[in-house]
Amino acid sequence: MKQMGKKGLLLVFTGNGKGKTTAALGMAFRALGHGQRVAVIQFIKGSWKYGELESAKCFPGRLDFHVMGRGFTWNSDNMDKDIALARQAWTFARTTIAEGKHDLVILDELTYLISYAMIDEDEILAGLAARPESMHVVVTGRGAGKGLIAAADLVTEMREIKHPYHDGVKAQKGIEY
Amino acid sequence: MKQMGKKGLLLVFTGNGKGKTTAALGMAFRALGHGQRVAVIQFIKGSWKYGELESAKCFPGRLDFHVMGRGFTWNSDNMDKDIALARQAWTFARTTIAEGKHDLVILDELTYLISYAMIDEDEILAGLAARPESMHVVVTGRGAGKGLIAAADLVTEMREIKHPYHDGVKAQKGIEY
Repeated sequence: MKQMGKKGLLLVFTGNGKGKTTAALGMAFRALGHGQRVAVIQFIKGSWKYGELESAKCFPGRLDFHVMGRGFTWNSDNMDKDIALARQAWTFARTTIAEGKHDLVILDELTYLISYAMIDEDEILAGLAARPESMHVVVTGRGAGKGLIAAADLVTEMREIKHPYHDGVKAQKGIEY
Repeated sequence: MKQMGKKGLLLVFTGNGKGKTTAALGMAFRALGHGQRVAVIQFIKGSWKYGELESAKCFPGRLDFHVMGRGFTWNSDNMDKDIALARQAWTFARTTIAEGKHDLVILDELTYLISYAMIDEDEILAGLAARPESMHVVVTGRGAGKGLIAAADLVTEMREIKHPYHDGVKAQKGIEY
C-alpha cells in the first residue's frame, strides 16, 4: 500500500531490555495484515525463531525473511572474515532498501554492525536515508548511537527493569523463541 | 503446549514510549506460530486494530480477541458507570485467566484500571497470581506501579526517546494501526 508524497519513517528500538525484536515482529504482522510486503533481515544469531517463521507461512509471498548472521559470533579471532561477512550482509540490506519492493523493512540487530565498527555509521545512515518514500524501516539492537537516533523519526529505548534470567528461569517456548 | 511444573511468567511492558502493545502483538504471533492458544483482552480504546485483526484470521480458533473498553474514555463525568464497566472488564479477564484455556493471555492497557483507581491493585494482583502454571500473562500500559512490578517476572520500560508526532507527522497505516 503506497503512501505517495510521504516520507517513510525510520523507527529504532534500542536499549538492553526485552521487546525490541518482539515489537518489530508485531509491526511485521500489523503490516502483513494490511496486505503490505515485509522484509526481515536478521544480522545476528537467531532472534527470529520457529514461532514467528511458522506464523509467517500464513502470508505466502509477502514476507521475505533473510538470515545474514549465520556463523557470526562477533567473537571471532578472524576479524577480516567477520568484516567481510558484515559487509556482505549490509550490502544485501542496502540493496533491499534501494529496490523498494517492500512497504516495511526490518533490520534486526543492525546496531551491532556500527557498535563493533564493522561498517562505518555514515555509510549505514546513507543507506537508510535512501529508503523510498513508501517504505518504513525498523532498526533494532542495543546501543543505538547518536547518529542513528538523530536520523530516526521514532526511537524507543526498551529498558530492562526486571528479567527472569536473573532468577535462573530458562527460556520458554512462545516467550523467547 | 503445556509446560508442566513450571510457573507461567508474568510479563509487563510499561513506559511512555511506543512498542508496548506492539511487543505484545509480537508475542501473540510467536505463540500462535507454536500452535498455542492466545487471548487478547483490550481494556482501553482500539490499540489493536485492523492490521493485526486481519492477520489473526490466519489462526482460526486459536486467537480469542475481546475488546472490553469500547465506550471507555476515562474522562467520563459518570464515574459510577466507568467503575462498573471497569469491573465488568476485569471480571472477564480474571475469569479468562482462571479458566486456563489459553497458553498466553494479553491484558492490553490493564495498568490504567489501577492508575485510575478503578479496581484495587491487590485484587488485580491476586487475579494475576492465580494464573495456571501453563499460562503466561502479558500486561501492557503506562505507569505500572510497584506492586505490579514486584509481582512480575519480566518488566521492560519502553522509554520514548523520540516520537514523530512531535514533529507533526500523522498516524500511518502499518505503523500505528
